Amino acid sequence: MPDTTHSIALPCPSALVTDLYELTMAAAYFENNFAANATFELFVRSLPNDRGYLLFAGLEQALEFMEQVRFKPEEIDFIRRHPVFKHVSDAFFDYLRDFRFTGEVWAIRDGTPIFAQEPLLRVTAPIIEAQLVETFLLNSVAFPTMIATKAARLVEAAQGRAVIEFGTRRAHGAQAGLLAARASYVGGCVGTSNVEAGFHYGIPTYGTVAHSFIMAYGDEEEAFRRFCDVYPDDSILLIDTYDTKRAVEKIIAMELQPKAVRLDSGDLAEQSKMVRRMLDSAGLQDTKIFASGDLDEFIITRMLAQHAPIDFFAVGTALVTSKDAPSLGAVYKLVEIKQNGQTRYAAKFSEDKVTYPGKKQVFRFSDARDCYERDVIARESESHPGAQPLLECMMRNGERTDPAPALKEVREHASESLRRLPARYRELKDSSKYPVAFSDQLERLLKQVKDEVASGG
Amino acid sequence: MPDTTHSIALPCPSALVTDLYELTMAAAYFENNFAANATFELFVRSLPNDRGYLLFAGLEQALEFMEQVRFKPEEIDFIRRHPVFKHVSDAFFDYLRDFRFTGEVWAIRDGTPIFAQEPLLRVTAPIIEAQLVETFLLNSVAFPTMIATKAARLVEAAQGRAVIEFGTRRAHGAQAGLLAARASYVGGCVGTSNVEAGFHYGIPTYGTVAHSFIMAYGDEEEAFRRFCDVYPDDSILLIDTYDTKRAVEKIIAMELQPKAVRLDSGDLAEQSKMVRRMLDSAGLQDTKIFASGDLDEFIITRMLAQHAPIDFFAVGTALVTSKDAPSLGAVYKLVEIKQNGQTRYAAKFSEDKVTYPGKKQVFRFSDARDCYERDVIARESESHPGAQPLLECMMRNGERTDPAPALKEVREHASESLRRLPARYRELKDSSKYPVAFSDQLERLLKQVKDEVASGG
Repeated sequence: MPDTTHSIALPCPSALVTDLYELTMAAAYFENNFAANATFELFVRSLPNDRGYLLFAGLEQALEFMEQVRFKPEEIDFIRRHPVFKHVSDAFFDYLRDFRFTGEVWAIRDGTPIFAQEPLLRVTAPIIEAQLVETFLLNSVAFPTMIATKAARLVEAAQGRAVIEFGTRRAHGAQAGLLAARASYVGGCVGTSNVEAGFHYGIPTYGTVAHSFIMAYGDEEEAFRRFCDVYPDDSILLIDTYDTKRAVEKIIAMELQPKAVRLDSGDLAEQSKMVRRMLDSAGLQDTKIFASGDLDEFIITRMLAQHAPIDFFAVGTALVTSKDAPSLGAVYKLVEIKQNGQTRYAAKFSEDKVTYPGKKQVFRFSDARDCYERDVIARESESHPGAQPLLECMMRNGERTDPAPALKEVREHASESLRRLPARYRELKDSSKYPVAFSDQLERLLKQVKDEVASGG
Repeated sequence: MPDTTHSIALPCPSALVTDLYELTMAAAYFENNFAANATFELFVRSLPNDRGYLLFAGLEQALEFMEQVRFKPEEIDFIRRHPVFKHVSDAFFDYLRDFRFTGEVWAIRDGTPIFAQEPLLRVTAPIIEAQLVETFLLNSVAFPTMIATKAARLVEAAQGRAVIEFGTRRAHGAQAGLLAARASYVGGCVGTSNVEAGFHYGIPTYGTVAHSFIMAYGDEEEAFRRFCDVYPDDSILLIDTYDTKRAVEKIIAMELQPKAVRLDSGDLAEQSKMVRRMLDSAGLQDTKIFASGDLDEFIITRMLAQHAPIDFFAVGTALVTSKDAPSLGAVYKLVEIKQNGQTRYAAKFSEDKVTYPGKKQVFRFSDARDCYERDVIARESESHPGAQPLLECMMRNGERTDPAPALKEVREHASESLRRLPARYRELKDSSKYPVAFSDQLERLLKQVKDEVASGG
């Protein structure tokens, strides 16, 4: 396995992973000599349905991109030939040739529970640089965060039983499968079926056997025996191809000792109880029960309420597509701009979509038992004694301040942080609303900017 | 632009884009000298909600993968070190070193409307080969099909107005954004905001300007003027940052002639009518109106019912995540196996999940006006005069029989095929159920296999 467990380990995406308007705006700034340092903040406007929190997990790929993003000559040629750029000077394309991201990035650590409106990533850079990375940042931050959150919900539902990510076939492309495996691991899954994720990230990989294997042999007993011959102490046998009860009887009669059996259809709670009883009476107490088949956090909760003796939950579609909430309303908003030594604050005031102005910090207060109590979104310069500032400087002059944390560290941070988030905010439905307030100073700044705009200032 | 418009143009995915069980089954077949030729069929069990058809669009990447898939030495080393393979012989890893897909593939052409239960891809190969590609095939076929279908629905709703894919930032990773742009184009979108998709596939790219640009200048008039200076005949101005009516007044007073204006919030139908009236009375009849902001096929339908004079619909999240149906129940099932000169048929009989045995063909009947009338799923060997067999031989001995079609051809085939599908099957809600039947011969084969299993044969 290559030593890449600390890294996102994907080829750095092309600088062309961007919306065309990022490039047209870049050229417009360039041609107009609009030299300004801009600060953008990335946040989620509102939490998806049934989510009391989100588990942030999108930072690594975003930082790698900002560190490595370059335009290749053939990519610049392509842009140059786009008709929209016909009046743009050669100097702009020379600029793209030398383009790199030189800015400063503050961000919340991967594996931290976060809430709506909280800046997760704050980018300060020459405005063209800050603008050109927008599309990729939004793309790369939102998906893993969605998946890590879903994984954490499944792990919560499983009450200590293992949850394994099994969904590559249902992910939105091969890369989505890989990213989902990684984010699921961060969110608390014990592993994945995705072999590439094992290879790149060192995530434990799990597998069983498919119905096709049983059917290929035609005879179930022969299929079981053949499989156990090759995996004498590691076989997980699929027992629902024909008749679950008969399959367990065969395993017992053949004196096989599978590591586990897998149920993939029918009433999993009832079946697992029957299978457990049969295995136990045959002395196969060590044989675990593995369940799969369109599971989600609510189905798992229901099965465990029925005392289903299931040891492993393999979850596919619901996890890798975050099926009940397959997108996050993440946005990247200009909040401050410095030009000719002057600072201007940018804000938006429409009733449903307020964007607070200025560089911000998130302060998290904990109670006496070290549990998270409330957050304050404040101006960067504020100090809130006793609270932990969540945004840390991750990148300066376009270079990371620290090497990326190991994936296991991120996973541990996530698990530890989720423990500190009181249970009422982790409910799978109708969770309490975690208190997040804007600081007085920030409210004053918002009012000030509003008044200035109103007076045409 | 590189000459890759005919190809999927992504680096060929690793052979490790697979579930671990594909490899454990492969090793089990290998170690047991289970030499058989297997036929698997890939199909969708049922159509998602509100879908009367699916637009197939996943073939190219699947074929490229099968043609190119290889294991790299370091990948084999990784597999070898996985504890589950500890009893597996060296010969298996030597086999992986020389592994390539040598089978035959029949498939339906990309851009064809398809229905539940119809085999889209039929793979016949030595069983290990046919099994090892399963995960990638399911992954790569389902997502583009989902997205092309969603695009076709949006295009249907837009009644001749242009629909543009604008969703990269909300896609499940960068690759999902690229694949979604391509599939959206197949489904009838006129283009995408994704520059990489323009570069790789020659898809037309579109862009406007963001709120941040207007806010960066602070003064809206200056922002408009600066943008139009650089794009005198190609500017699309965003007019809802502060006050839409005022923004149009400014454009008129400044005598700008933007190619289009974009509305991104508020009551788009009402706003577009006001804006159209204002532009027209100022002689700006050629300035188009562009709408964006969480659109989907139902919102577009509603706006057009209100006679909203919108020329371009930019659709993001709903399209690139197929938000209302973010996964497809695609499966890959063993249907036939040839071993020692004998053919066995594989089938499944559980009430909710019947899998018909044997190699199949889909015969499509058209009416006198050349519109699609009904399909028959039949045994491969059947002949149905007057019907078009949809599955074509795409690959023989692991090599493509024909070069990949150009993307534009696929798009035209899709558009032409959708025209041939009667409108009642294309309704956005409560569409009629297109008639798909299993042939008598296939029903007889199913019964025969069922009887054999029942008699323990």
